Amino acid sequence: MTKTLYFEVGEYKQRLAKTKQSMNDKGIEVLIVTDPANMNYITGFDGWSFYVHQGLIIIIDQDEPIWFGRGQDGNAARLTTWLSEENIRAYTDDYVQSLIKHPMDYVSDILREKGCDNKVIATEMDTYYYTAKCQECLVNNLPNAKFKDGTNLINWVKIVKSSTEIDYIKKAAIIVENTMQKAFDSINVGTRQNEVAANVYHAQIYGTEEFGGDYTSIAPLLPSGIRTSTPHLSWTDEPYRDGDTVLVEIAGNYRRYHCPLSRTVILGNAPQKVQDLASVVVEGIAETLAFVKPGITAEDIERVWSKSIAKSGFIKDSRVGYSFGLNYPPDWGEHTISLRPGDKTILEPNMTLHFMPGIWLDDCGVDISEPIRITETGVELLTHYPRKLLVK
Amino acid sequence: MTKTLYFEVGEYKQRLAKTKQSMNDKGIEVLIVTDPANMNYITGFDGWSFYVHQGLIIIIDQDEPIWFGRGQDGNAARLTTWLSEENIRAYTDDYVQSLIKHPMDYVSDILREKGCDNKVIATEMDTYYYTAKCQECLVNNLPNAKFKDGTNLINWVKIVKSSTEIDYIKKAAIIVENTMQKAFDSINVGTRQNEVAANVYHAQIYGTEEFGGDYTSIAPLLPSGIRTSTPHLSWTDEPYRDGDTVLVEIAGNYRRYHCPLSRTVILGNAPQKVQDLASVVVEGIAETLAFVKPGITAEDIERVWSKSIAKSGFIKDSRVGYSFGLNYPPDWGEHTISLRPGDKTILEPNMTLHFMPGIWLDDCGVDISEPIRITETGVELLTHYPRKLLVK
Repeated sequence: MTKTLYFEVGEYKQRLAKTKQSMNDKGIEVLIVTDPANMNYITGFDGWSFYVHQGLIIIIDQDEPIWFGRGQDGNAARLTTWLSEENIRAYTDDYVQSLIKHPMDYVSDILREKGCDNKVIATEMDTYYYTAKCQECLVNNLPNAKFKDGTNLINWVKIVKSSTEIDYIKKAAIIVENTMQKAFDSINVGTRQNEVAANVYHAQIYGTEEFGGDYTSIAPLLPSGIRTSTPHLSWTDEPYRDGDTVLVEIAGNYRRYHCPLSRTVILGNAPQKVQDLASVVVEGIAETLAFVKPGITAEDIERVWSKSIAKSGFIKDSRVGYSFGLNYPPDWGEHTISLRPGDKTILEPNMTLHFMPGIWLDDCGVDISEPIRITETGVELLTHYPRKLLVK
Repeated sequence: MTKTLYFEVGEYKQRLAKTKQSMNDKGIEVLIVTDPANMNYITGFDGWSFYVHQGLIIIIDQDEPIWFGRGQDGNAARLTTWLSEENIRAYTDDYVQSLIKHPMDYVSDILREKGCDNKVIATEMDTYYYTAKCQECLVNNLPNAKFKDGTNLINWVKIVKSSTEIDYIKKAAIIVENTMQKAFDSINVGTRQNEVAANVYHAQIYGTEEFGGDYTSIAPLLPSGIRTSTPHLSWTDEPYRDGDTVLVEIAGNYRRYHCPLSRTVILGNAPQKVQDLASVVVEGIAETLAFVKPGITAEDIERVWSKSIAKSGFIKDSRVGYSFGLNYPPDWGEHTISLRPGDKTILEPNMTLHFMPGIWLDDCGVDISEPIRITETGVELLTHYPRKLLVK
């Protein structure tokens, strides 16, 4: 079979080695990986099959992980991973959404076969596709194993990007810039919101003449009017009206690597409150980015931001950004760095952060953001879209 | 605030009453609901915020459920649900993706406040966004509660659709027919796969002149060439080649209600094996649909199908369909009825099923499906797209 692999096998093996190092540091002998992004990161596995239980079994003294999943997805593992045939283990369809058999029963059988049923096994306890039932099955089936929490273990391995990963993120950045322009061009009084969303999707997936785009892990977020008081609403099929504020939070995606970007569009005259809010955000972004460099901590960034906006009287009571990169729905954030008090992660070159200091008040909101790469000496802006309230 | 509610409040309250009836039958006093489709079904809640922990607390003797979620999503609950202000409970941002505080600690506090900490509490144990950590937190925090598994309790309440729900699904059906036509028109030798995907997304969201579309719960699945040996791959940015088979599995979505549809397109001369496979599938669909009516069971459908294809020598080793309707990523299936041996659910009018007898062999595959509604006497086809191998 002709495989589709987007990195050299050596890069996957380096990632696996780093993961095993972290497992060793934490006293973990077996790691069950169900986060689709982590599965992709280690093996290349790609496909919209995470709606059934699937994962990797990483055994610390084995060369290759074992992929497990549904029978009909076995060929997806053959086509998109570097794993050898013996490590692709597909379960029969009667395990799917059944009340009688659970895929983790199948996984337990593999763990017994490999002599791992008395080992220290870590699971991604707080990861989307690892349900309470998964853990219950494993714990019941393997009474001699010791369980640990492996949530985010691989997420932290992912935190510094390789040169190929940065290249992919920069392609995603080109896509998101083009897409933001398409959104801006499309948002007009009388145009239905869903038509703008349709154009956004088209631009995201069309990509450029040279390379195509992939689906992003969050649908285009396009709240308008009173709906801008909250960040995570999508569109309706109502037309935009004169005076509407529209929040545009989107990403580009290339080979599962994201670049997110947010802007705020106003149709007609911006209310003074929105203008004031936007000015504060734009000034805060500039002052904060001037300060960002390797060696500072995540919470340092938030502190500079908070000091900047304190002058205005506006309050931002949520984190001002997060690490991003490789991901699958429902989130493009990596669940590692959060730019907020208490996060003492020290920034290093080739970390990629979405500096996203959106403010949502009771009756309006402003989203303006910058996706950035930490460089050897400071910060690189990944996109170059006008950083201001976009009045139309 | 101007609310966006897509059903009469009375319909939401009927759904809640049915849910409480089922809770009562199962001896459940409190149900924690984290499936976004179930949250929407009971309250109307909409928004792409399921990437953080959120949910409903349904207390059997309380009139309204309690919505819990992230602070910035509280206004989404105010704008999209019928709940009163006192039942919208939003947690501070330091609960988000934190190692110190978990949103289920916040939920535990609410349960204590409501005197529910010694009740029989059911959780959706095997639902996407209910992690192992969620359950661990609740169990540790509430030692006097008794826990039960409430997986799919509301999914089964959803199984028979109301007239408004059928109306929405029929609008989604119009969208998916238009979208399938767009996909067929776009798939050409030399066209990049991602351009077809871009056109599919545009058609899905543009909808019609009269009504717009919403995002579907699965990305367009468009495997081609050797990738048709497995169903859940999306696209690449390679161009289609003469002789390629392309599987198109897509849906339309209107107000979160889906209508799925699959077809197989061949560019140029179809290999005899693919032609044979398609003939078997088309004949099997016709023979099976002629048999479907209320009163038969889900497994009866599979039996008729299996008998039909047995003549050919091809084998279908996975379920041949499932219930669909309201959903959020990552799945548009409802996790209730599966058309396979052992599923003894008796069909009733206004159940909606995706009869999807795709066959994926080692080197090729054929997807041809029909979304159907069970009527008082038989079956209604929800779409009317040519049911054949689409040779181009």
